[in-house]
Amino acid sequence: MTDDHEPTPAEQAAVEDRVVEDVLASFDGTPDPRLKQVMRSLTRHLHAFIRDVRLTEREWNTAIEFLTAVGDITDDERQEFVLLSDVLGASMQTIAVNNRSYAGATEATVFGPFFVEDSPEIPLGGDLAGSAPGQPCWVEGTVTDTEGAPVPGARIEVWECDEDGFYDVQHSDGRVAGRAHLHSDADGRYRFWGLTPVPYPIPHDGPVGRMLEAAGRSPVRAAHLHFMVTAAGLRTLVTHIFVEGDPQLAIGDCVFGVKDSLVKRFEQQDPGTPTPDGRELGDRTWARCRFDVVLAPAGS
Amino acid sequence: MTDDHEPTPAEQAAVEDRVVEDVLASFDGTPDPRLKQVMRSLTRHLHAFIRDVRLTEREWNTAIEFLTAVGDITDDERQEFVLLSDVLGASMQTIAVNNRSYAGATEATVFGPFFVEDSPEIPLGGDLAGSAPGQPCWVEGTVTDTEGAPVPGARIEVWECDEDGFYDVQHSDGRVAGRAHLHSDADGRYRFWGLTPVPYPIPHDGPVGRMLEAAGRSPVRAAHLHFMVTAAGLRTLVTHIFVEGDPQLAIGDCVFGVKDSLVKRFEQQDPGTPTPDGRELGDRTWARCRFDVVLAPAGS
Repeated sequence: MTDDHEPTPAEQAAVEDRVVEDVLASFDGTPDPRLKQVMRSLTRHLHAFIRDVRLTEREWNTAIEFLTAVGDITDDERQEFVLLSDVLGASMQTIAVNNRSYAGATEATVFGPFFVEDSPEIPLGGDLAGSAPGQPCWVEGTVTDTEGAPVPGARIEVWECDEDGFYDVQHSDGRVAGRAHLHSDADGRYRFWGLTPVPYPIPHDGPVGRMLEAAGRSPVRAAHLHFMVTAAGLRTLVTHIFVEGDPQLAIGDCVFGVKDSLVKRFEQQDPGTPTPDGRELGDRTWARCRFDVVLAPAGS
Repeated sequence: MTDDHEPTPAEQAAVEDRVVEDVLASFDGTPDPRLKQVMRSLTRHLHAFIRDVRLTEREWNTAIEFLTAVGDITDDERQEFVLLSDVLGASMQTIAVNNRSYAGATEATVFGPFFVEDSPEIPLGGDLAGSAPGQPCWVEGTVTDTEGAPVPGARIEVWECDEDGFYDVQHSDGRVAGRAHLHSDADGRYRFWGLTPVPYPIPHDGPVGRMLEAAGRSPVRAAHLHFMVTAAGLRTLVTHIFVEGDPQLAIGDCVFGVKDSLVKRFEQQDPGTPTPDGRELGDRTWARCRFDVVLAPAGS
């Protein structure tokens, strides 16, 4: 846990221990046992951080100013505290803790801020792009359980940004584009047209962006396509698929959502290559990707 | 570090370790070595907290909402992030880390938000109360170094709330009361009239107050009198003295500022008891307290 620093003399360590013990004791009377547990653990880790880095009073002031700036920019449309959690990996760690890996099941990743309830339904093979510009991309696969049994009628929510890196909800005109849901067929199969994902920066004109810049970190998310798959008796899966060969995979996804098993091949197709469903794309290029979804048992 | 919970299977622990490693690695290119050290330590402790308590997604949401509320109430006159740091003991721990105990020297404690630069100067034996109501209190003592040598000309800043628990700056009329500075005499002695300290609650009508209530904690600070003592060649001392017998000492100071060595006897005096300087107080009671200040060497 400890970064390098001068050893702390025993007498001084005792003074610091005493502060921790005083704070822990202040939660002795907390009626809710879970709140008590969380606050005591927070106390231990917060104080261990301050002591480990020997936080200076000036740095404490900087931290207060930073959090104040995060609060200042946060409003109904901008959630800088979520961004902060995201870029510190706290969001992804919370996902990991709550979605235990299950042998053979598709891995989960971050939900992100751009999901919207009540997306339009499209038929199998339908197109979710709407007015969102981008390269057409055919996505197909199966939904099965970890025994390999097909899951018919699974609800598959898909959402993504356009080729400029914007989700529909980032425009203020109420448009719905780049999002839809569909259901797997009797054999657990699904297919749809979407857009080939592209990398995009998270909002980085605020304090979190300035922190990333000071840390020499990219504010860019690796290209991805969001999925949420729900089916009776199975654990709901929130995940993305990422694009093999995306240079951002090597630079690093700014919210740590990438897992190797979620990186998929998006095969680029020359203009005129016949499409799986006979759709005419003229002189446009397109891409195709296969993503087989495996759902863990509910409650696992 | 760990509160009780089910053991995490090795495969799951590996997934969570990987998230931590990814976040740590994201700071590999941070140019400033101190920022790199602080962010890496913050990452380790933040993730250890999430993993230790197995933070749920709902609790993560509650934390985001809480921080958002702290940001909402914070403005130029209300600093809820400082209150949050105070009630978690983070402020006191930062003070402890930066003001190493030095054998024989008076201990430091929290600075608090109510100090103001350019306080009025009073002569030795002067009165700092101004228009602030409260019981008159005679405070006297010496300023020495840890060898026992008197420190003449030490600047002694003193500030405190009135008997209603309010500092002058909490009124919006610009009044200056309950604060002053004076200098020790040629023998290192000082003396002044102030007010007998009383307990008072920190502002607790916001999210921090609600957190204290949920945790079953008192929002009250033990009665205290603030001091800041500066002298050439000696370490500046920021401290309080507390009042022996104050019931809040047993309940607990909400910002953890109390140290046993700082609890002093404030001797109550009956009406008519002669005052040290012959001041006439008529039928009023008063109190007296002795506080000998011992300053550590500068740079210690």
